Amino acid sequence: MANQATAERTLDRTFAACAHPIRRGIVERLAARESAAGGRAADMTVGEATRDFAVSKPAISRHLRVLEEAGAIERVIDGRTHRLRLAEQPFEDASDWIARLQQMWERKFDAVEQYLAERGR
Amino acid sequence: MANQATAERTLDRTFAACAHPIRRGIVERLAARESAAGGRAADMTVGEATRDFAVSKPAISRHLRVLEEAGAIERVIDGRTHRLRLAEQPFEDASDWIARLQQMWERKFDAVEQYLAERGR
Repeated sequence: MANQATAERTLDRTFAACAHPIRRGIVERLAARESAAGGRAADMTVGEATRDFAVSKPAISRHLRVLEEAGAIERVIDGRTHRLRLAEQPFEDASDWIARLQQMWERKFDAVEQYLAERGR
Repeated sequence: MANQATAERTLDRTFAACAHPIRRGIVERLAARESAAGGRAADMTVGEATRDFAVSKPAISRHLRVLEEAGAIERVIDGRTHRLRLAEQPFEDASDWIARLQQMWERKFDAVEQYLAERGR
């Protein structure tokens, strides 16, 4: 039960983290960096990851905190440089939840197909 | 540009709608009903869809409003009976956004595999 509650709480935070265009933008940049890094572990400085969003620094800090609390990004502090890396698991879990819904819909569509096939006999 | 902004706003609302266990619970019930209905359009009364959640009626109303504003559920009013039906598109769009991230990660893993394959020669 505790694990179930923790999983629910993690899903709450992940979906909430995805619910703002600036947070999605930061995540997209980190994912693009991972892709471009061609298999090496990839991170970005906070400056690179948050550049050019038209909001204040405190607003950026709040968005980063929401992403970190969801476990969607990890921050590595190296002296005065803060680096960010994307964590994949929370997105996998969110995606799995939606996929389970979609499986239920697909069962529905399978039933429609079966009905049409039987009718066509 | 307006369409892009609208799409972003819709994603914001869909992810926010998914960010609470009661809202996910309501959505799961509606999806299960669709699945069980075997291809017929399926809906539930508000009472059926929201029964047994240990929160007040006003709290349930707020959760339903968040889901409706996201376009994730539709409400059909038939006299004194309010019926709810799941809308699939917002979930498809949210799922597509996560899938695009995952494609970026997969490119990364492809690169790892290629590296390992070349090293193994």
